[in-house]
Amino acid sequence: RAYQGAPTGTDIECKGWRQEAALRMLNNNLDPEVAERPEDLVVYGGTGRAARSWDAYDAILAELRDLDDDETLLVQSGKPVGRFPTHERAPRVLIANSNLVGRWDDWEHFHELEAEGKIMYGQMTAGSWAYIGTQGIIQGTYETLAELARQHYDADLRGKLVVTGGLGGMSGAQPLAVTMNHGVCIAAEVQADRIERRVETDYLMESADSLDEALENAKDAIEAGEPYSVGVQMNAADMLEELLARDEIPDVVTDQTSAHDELEGYYPSGYTAAEADRLREDDPEKYVEESLDTMERHVQAILDLQDAGAIAFEYGNNIRGQVQNHRGMEHAFDFPGFVPAYIRPMFCRGRGPFRWAALSGDPADIHRTDEAIRELFPEHESLMRWIDLAQEQVSFQGLPSRVCWLGYTTDDEGLTERARFALKINDLVASGEVSAPVVVTRDHLDAGSVASPYRETEAMRDGTDAVADWPILNALLNTAAGADIVSVHDGGGVGIGNSLHTNNHVVLDGSDLAAKKARAVFTTDPGMGVIRHADAGYEDALDEAARSNVRIPMRD
Amino acid sequence: RAYQGAPTGTDIECKGWRQEAALRMLNNNLDPEVAERPEDLVVYGGTGRAARSWDAYDAILAELRDLDDDETLLVQSGKPVGRFPTHERAPRVLIANSNLVGRWDDWEHFHELEAEGKIMYGQMTAGSWAYIGTQGIIQGTYETLAELARQHYDADLRGKLVVTGGLGGMSGAQPLAVTMNHGVCIAAEVQADRIERRVETDYLMESADSLDEALENAKDAIEAGEPYSVGVQMNAADMLEELLARDEIPDVVTDQTSAHDELEGYYPSGYTAAEADRLREDDPEKYVEESLDTMERHVQAILDLQDAGAIAFEYGNNIRGQVQNHRGMEHAFDFPGFVPAYIRPMFCRGRGPFRWAALSGDPADIHRTDEAIRELFPEHESLMRWIDLAQEQVSFQGLPSRVCWLGYTTDDEGLTERARFALKINDLVASGEVSAPVVVTRDHLDAGSVASPYRETEAMRDGTDAVADWPILNALLNTAAGADIVSVHDGGGVGIGNSLHTNNHVVLDGSDLAAKKARAVFTTDPGMGVIRHADAGYEDALDEAARSNVRIPMRD
Ligand SMILES: NC(=O)c1ccc[n+]([C@@H]2O[C@H](COP(=O)([O-])OP(=O)(O)OC[C@H]3O[C@@H](n4cnc5c(N)ncnc54)[C@H](O)[C@@H]3O)[C@@H](O)[C@H]2O)c1
Ligand SMILES: NC(=O)c1ccc[n+]([C@@H]2O[C@H](COP(=O)([O-])OP(=O)(O)OC[C@H]3O[C@@H](n4cnc5c(N)ncnc54)[C@H](O)[C@@H]3O)[C@@H](O)[C@H]2O)c1
Repeated sequence: RAYQGAPTGTDIECKGWRQEAALRMLNNNLDPEVAERPEDLVVYGGTGRAARSWDAYDAILAELRDLDDDETLLVQSGKPVGRFPTHERAPRVLIANSNLVGRWDDWEHFHELEAEGKIMYGQMTAGSWAYIGTQGIIQGTYETLAELARQHYDADLRGKLVVTGGLGGMSGAQPLAVTMNHGVCIAAEVQADRIERRVETDYLMESADSLDEALENAKDAIEAGEPYSVGVQMNAADMLEELLARDEIPDVVTDQTSAHDELEGYYPSGYTAAEADRLREDDPEKYVEESLDTMERHVQAILDLQDAGAIAFEYGNNIRGQVQNHRGMEHAFDFPGFVPAYIRPMFCRGRGPFRWAALSGDPADIHRTDEAIRELFPEHESLMRWIDLAQEQVSFQGLPSRVCWLGYTTDDEGLTERARFALKINDLVASGEVSAPVVVTRDHLDAGSVASPYRETEAMRDGTDAVADWPILNALLNTAAGADIVSVHDGGGVGIGNSLHTNNHVVLDGSDLAAKKARAVFTTDPGMGVIRHADAGYEDALDEAARSNVRIPMRD
Repeated sequence: RAYQGAPTGTDIECKGWRQEAALRMLNNNLDPEVAERPEDLVVYGGTGRAARSWDAYDAILAELRDLDDDETLLVQSGKPVGRFPTHERAPRVLIANSNLVGRWDDWEHFHELEAEGKIMYGQMTAGSWAYIGTQGIIQGTYETLAELARQHYDADLRGKLVVTGGLGGMSGAQPLAVTMNHGVCIAAEVQADRIERRVETDYLMESADSLDEALENAKDAIEAGEPYSVGVQMNAADMLEELLARDEIPDVVTDQTSAHDELEGYYPSGYTAAEADRLREDDPEKYVEESLDTMERHVQAILDLQDAGAIAFEYGNNIRGQVQNHRGMEHAFDFPGFVPAYIRPMFCRGRGPFRWAALSGDPADIHRTDEAIRELFPEHESLMRWIDLAQEQVSFQGLPSRVCWLGYTTDDEGLTERARFALKINDLVASGEVSAPVVVTRDHLDAGSVASPYRETEAMRDGTDAVADWPILNALLNTAAGADIVSVHDGGGVGIGNSLHTNNHVVLDGSDLAAKKARAVFTTDPGMGVIRHADAGYEDALDEAARSNVRIPMRD
């Protein structure tokens, strides 16, 4: 089916803006600029779909157009299955995707049901109508590094050298995220065309012919306090060993080569990319052995750099697990993963990827909200940097939208960061400064919304990684608070049976009702992050709870 | 800790009746008359608890006493973990118990976390503060047989012979449930003292010395059209074979011996109970072989009786699975389980175990509501019978309460059965005819509230037994509708990882708010049963949806 994306403008097809927002966000998810394969209803992340079938899609739209302001539509794995009278303050749409009873909660059962059209993979934001394109990737990497800077360098990477590997789909965002934080980045990448591509698309400033050249340029930039990034065509393990040999210790070392896959993802040392590709064809078993040997050296080099004073973290590619499992390297986990190290401290304060879209379709509306962020949070340096850079460098896909990390921390009136900003947007809509309602949503990866032992809840202090009561309470509480769409998904980025997570939308149409909803939801939702981490014993969360008067029964 | 049960009377400790209802129901669950081991916070069903620890219990009570009318308390596996401002129409308490991410959703991980005090087993009504004692057992059996009677005999078992096995804890309810439906029951039981106990407690009318005597008396009762029940001390398999040999074919054959456990539960033929107990001690392997041999004959006899014209069903003891697994008897499943046969048709119409408790503690309040049931549903014969019998024969435990099955089916004004009755109670509270508010709740085993492939969703027509989107949507929707407590549990009666289910409470305090909540929740909650079964293709559900104007998007 040929597909157009979201309707825009100020005329609506539905009986109210809450229903219209749902309709536009579903369509935005399927915008050819946004979705990977809109013709198959696939938004991103493998087979993450927005609706179960085109028939289901048509039926959802028909229901939304007809839905009253006190009715609620139910969507079960991408199919509309019911519609009931509730009340104005309640959600207009409730969504549950891909959920299976525990014993059957695996790919085998999922695929059986999927083949029969009985279930759908919702990924995270795909099935909950909240995907906004690649903006999320660069922003997540930016925030991770910004948090590192806050923890270690007074909130800025100026004059700091970050060394990493990989310049592919996701990993290619690393150099830009470093320079956005004013730092200097050297990235090793074995494939020359990957380096070129990042230079062409302005994710990387230049490519160097040798590590010597890269280091020289990097040192100049550090001296001058200028942001700088450079790619070198070489194996990342080799590069780190060479830095050690020369006693050139970077400030930060990480890696985002595709180490999670020892055959198709990671390149062994001692081969060019082309040679390695031939080896993979001819002798895959040898390839795997060589690849794991290199990974072992790679992890050892990271640990040695850490010992020599560098800040080291794993960036979600499972390189530690690989060498622990396949090479028996027991100390592989002596450097931390990125979630416990940099994301979790933010989760403790209810910070997470808050995003909003202009339902008008007018970029000026987002620019006006960018202004509002600047007015409200001038003291948040990394946020100010992000907004400037996003305006300059991030092009819109589908409905103009923005993402930034906001948290719980309350002001004098007891309003959280998220609530303050949402209420501000609502005022701008009321006054007409923003031309049509704005919908606020978020990633499923958020402070209080997810149980995912392989990622967001890896290595929780109290061992409660797999406890799923929390996302369920989060969805129930946001429903109680009056979010306009609430969804609960199984699987997401780590696969069926490996996580449970939720999200929600609040439509800011300038009304008092919207203000009430926003005030409640943007307290309860980040608040769940604070209490979940406080319950696990994190000091940052206990501190935030005390600072912002979050009630925690058995601690108060 | 010594324990007293729920406070009663019209003075309250909390800021409103909704919070007070939560406090009283939690305490009622722990009443020594109601709970199995109140000193350990265990309510029923193995280790089904009402709160995680006494500290958690104290904290829950403190929070409830202090909770405002627009606040919501969060309980995570029996521990209060947060409290947030929401609004009046929202729930006062949200509960999630025992939930784990799929891959970790098993007893091993659960017990690890439980040992560290990080999680609690909520069973079904234990952790959601809705258990009302043994009333539920007899009533469930009564309803199963009443549905059988509706399907096959014009809603009455008068003049019909039901033959079964087992007179133990749960199975002992069978003869009374048959006579409550005006039928005649012969039950085989190998242990004489079990038979005596049921006679003493009026669950069984008499005990016979032989099958001949039992049959003779049964025939007289059938002739006279009188209810009658009799126990015979013999093996159930032997009894069924003898009936076949004599060509005495009963109208209905079932079984509730503890066949799920071939060593500790089921008795082999050819031994007295005492001899079998010795064999179990001396030679457990031989016991198991003999036990399974008898079960094979037992199932074959049920199938032969079915062929000869009897209505046969399995009553939740897994005797079919046992002989299929251990004796390779492929045709074991040629007779149905009780859920697909008798419970599911009720679920299709949103019928399920609706229960209510008088917060006053005054039995007169429940008697007044019994009257209301009689006034509202005079045409429901089996319901009228149940109310009469319950008044006569069921003694209250803890807060006076009642249970009966009500469904979706709407009246001329579009009100469901459940809503009509709840609104009637609310009126009685408003007028003072009932002396204090009444709280309405239900079992987790209900029409639209559970995914449980080993029980409630066994053998769904479309194979969606394990799809858990439905109970999640149910909990979200009831929260949206404004139930006062909403809970989501993993496990329940079939064990961790095997089911997901929800329940809810609505407090009827005579107010307009209560009326709004009741009208919405008692539409959405049974409505989920109708749409879930309609989606699976059940004609009864599609019929109910058409009859009662339940909106089903892709069917309308
Ligand atoms: N942090 C997160 O939440 C998160 C999210 C998505 C992906 N990831 C992980 O990050 C990794 C990278 O993802 P991607 O999308 O960029 O993958 P990709 O395959 O597109 O890019 C990886 C790049 O690494 C290069 N490479 C492989 N081995 C190398 C070596 N030894 N030395 C130098 N370069 C080498 C490859 O040539 C490739 O260009 C994956 O393991 C992925 O699972 C993490
Ligand atoms: N339908 C449901 O939802 C449901 C609910 C609970 C239990 N059950 C099942 O019902 C069964 C009975 O439960 P219970 O609580 O009554 O157990 P119980 O052990 O208290 O009673 C079973 C009785 O059967 C007798 N018995 C065993 N083998 C016999 C034989 N071959 N012939 C005659 N009598 C025999 C025993 O002496 C015992 O008195 C169990 O398998 C249980 O799992 C079903």
